[in-house]
Amino acid sequence: MRRVHVLGSTGSIGRTAEQVLEELVATHEIVGLSAGKDAQRIVAQAERWRPRAVALADAGAASGVRARLDALGVRLFAGPDAAAEMVATIPSDVVLNGISGAAGLAASFAAIRRGATLALANKESMVMAGPLLVREAARSGATLLPVDSEHNAIFQCLGDECLDGVRRLLLTASGGPFRATPAQDLERVTPAQALRHPTWNMGDKITIDSSTLMNKALEVVEARWLFGISVEKIAVLVHPQSIVHSIVEFEDGCMLAQLGVPDMAVPIRFALAFPRRATTHRSYFDIERFRTLTFEEPDVARFPALLLGFEAARRGGTAGAVLNAANEVAVAAFLAGKLPFPRIASAVAATLERVPHVADPDLEQVLAADRAARTEAAACCS
Amino acid sequence: MRRVHVLGSTGSIGRTAEQVLEELVATHEIVGLSAGKDAQRIVAQAERWRPRAVALADAGAASGVRARLDALGVRLFAGPDAAAEMVATIPSDVVLNGISGAAGLAASFAAIRRGATLALANKESMVMAGPLLVREAARSGATLLPVDSEHNAIFQCLGDECLDGVRRLLLTASGGPFRATPAQDLERVTPAQALRHPTWNMGDKITIDSSTLMNKALEVVEARWLFGISVEKIAVLVHPQSIVHSIVEFEDGCMLAQLGVPDMAVPIRFALAFPRRATTHRSYFDIERFRTLTFEEPDVARFPALLLGFEAARRGGTAGAVLNAANEVAVAAFLAGKLPFPRIASAVAATLERVPHVADPDLEQVLAADRAARTEAAACCS
Repeated sequence: MRRVHVLGSTGSIGRTAEQVLEELVATHEIVGLSAGKDAQRIVAQAERWRPRAVALADAGAASGVRARLDALGVRLFAGPDAAAEMVATIPSDVVLNGISGAAGLAASFAAIRRGATLALANKESMVMAGPLLVREAARSGATLLPVDSEHNAIFQCLGDECLDGVRRLLLTASGGPFRATPAQDLERVTPAQALRHPTWNMGDKITIDSSTLMNKALEVVEARWLFGISVEKIAVLVHPQSIVHSIVEFEDGCMLAQLGVPDMAVPIRFALAFPRRATTHRSYFDIERFRTLTFEEPDVARFPALLLGFEAARRGGTAGAVLNAANEVAVAAFLAGKLPFPRIASAVAATLERVPHVADPDLEQVLAADRAARTEAAACCS
Repeated sequence: MRRVHVLGSTGSIGRTAEQVLEELVATHEIVGLSAGKDAQRIVAQAERWRPRAVALADAGAASGVRARLDALGVRLFAGPDAAAEMVATIPSDVVLNGISGAAGLAASFAAIRRGATLALANKESMVMAGPLLVREAARSGATLLPVDSEHNAIFQCLGDECLDGVRRLLLTASGGPFRATPAQDLERVTPAQALRHPTWNMGDKITIDSSTLMNKALEVVEARWLFGISVEKIAVLVHPQSIVHSIVEFEDGCMLAQLGVPDMAVPIRFALAFPRRATTHRSYFDIERFRTLTFEEPDVARFPALLLGFEAARRGGTAGAVLNAANEVAVAAFLAGKLPFPRIASAVAATLERVPHVADPDLEQVLAADRAARTEAAACCS
């Protein structure tokens, strides 16, 4: 049996992972579940999956369910580092990290240090500390499997190809709900409008990031470190149908693309079963009936957030952590109705200029940059 | 230096291979060229490339240029088996077989017997004698690289994937020049109209085959043997832009597609450089500017030839050889103005029913079936 930790189990990725694991019960077992504060749901998940342990970041929420978990014989980890502690303590083969935001970084490190396979849906880990994670994986022998649909697509297209032969990685983007919205109308965009994603059903934070193209900006940084490729070889292609999940262009004129339904179950299933392909009874894409796929260049004038991703990838060092932290603050301010939509990108840009850059940071310096960016971004958003 | 035989060097594949090899002169050298009867062009090619040998199937044409080749120090093979003899005699690393039709089979065998890499653009070899070629390659250690753009695409998409994980191979088809032509108008189609392919610039025979979808029928048989996959897992998808060259659908819901310009230089370059990717200065496809790719199911009512491919792949044995030979005869009759367009498929279908089937033939039985089919098809076409 392949032992799996599902981190962020009560969120969008975690619940999709449960559906996938229902199909994989013959070969996979959940040994750990983690969540932020949704104690009721994680207890229900623990009753269904009978893991060895559960982690809750919110110690208060954890204390309210300790007795029920004890009765199930499930060990409880509680507090801000609970997920990382659980991963470090309870042996597993695969750690699916579906935690949202910077909070997922410690658990990614814990998985890699143990030499486990890290199925990474928490792109922030790679954006903040890509070089550190990749270096640690090389040391420990851990395997890094991207679960972000775009990076998962590129991982599949690359196979055993030599990076020398790669001309460009083309990350596809749906373009979000405002792909055709005139620039002057973006000023009046509401959170409810921004949360209506045309193709993907995801958590709130990433849905807002898709509407600004900041999600793609973060993915540019993620691709930079994950695949060890120079930023000049990364490009973004708008593809409104979200069927082609990304493309690798080779030096010989060939392109390989990965296609499928826009459903996170597909890359999650891939990562959990790798290097096998798990047979499913859902998730097939009927290309014969679909008829039309379209592609266009992104409009960076209306969506300047995208340029910030290329800039952060180019700078390296702490720039990714600053980009990510500033964006988390700005998105929260937008969702709270305190920041107009176009100012998300400008607040992040201002923060990137103001927080001092460290070129080759250790983890402490990354976390310090994250904190400094949050303070600076809060000032930029007020 | 990688030593290359270019067979069918004066045809469409051969001349494209010359363009590709111009870019690869630092790493590849031509050791042999072969043609049917175009002696003047092959001598010009010999002057350019200075191979060790040249083969001409037409002994009369050969005798006319023997002195010029002698003067160049180029050995001449002449007669129907010249290409195969040259391949068997002159050592090489890669044999690019771009011979058109059943005439290419002997040279494919010669390459595989020697354990060379066979870059196969002559799909008829695989259609006629796929199981024999694959068995011989397993024995000799020869590598089989498909150059047909669809099979090359599938080869790239499969990479090191396990066939168990494959749900379907989706061979794309442009649909040819008559994709939107009403059934009743197909009766009046002329050779000139059928030779106007909407996306690919190829030889006459294969262009007619594209217009009937017989080319795709042959490719179904080719895929059956080349990839060792059951016919139930092979499907055809009409894609008029000819940018997606084929798709592999996996059991987990993922699809991998290979894309690029419709230019035979791409798969030829791939096969000559494999497993490396050769950098080129042409052949890039600007997907950002292309905008729209469409897909639809093939109309087997108007293009019944396609069903014959599935039928021949299902029957196996000598059915592929009969399908191919009957089609060569019927296409020649159509090009000569002696057979209406829709009767190409019906003549082939009738021949398939009339020639006795051999389930597990040796090469002699394959060649006998080819001869019997030609006789039978000639009767059906008159």
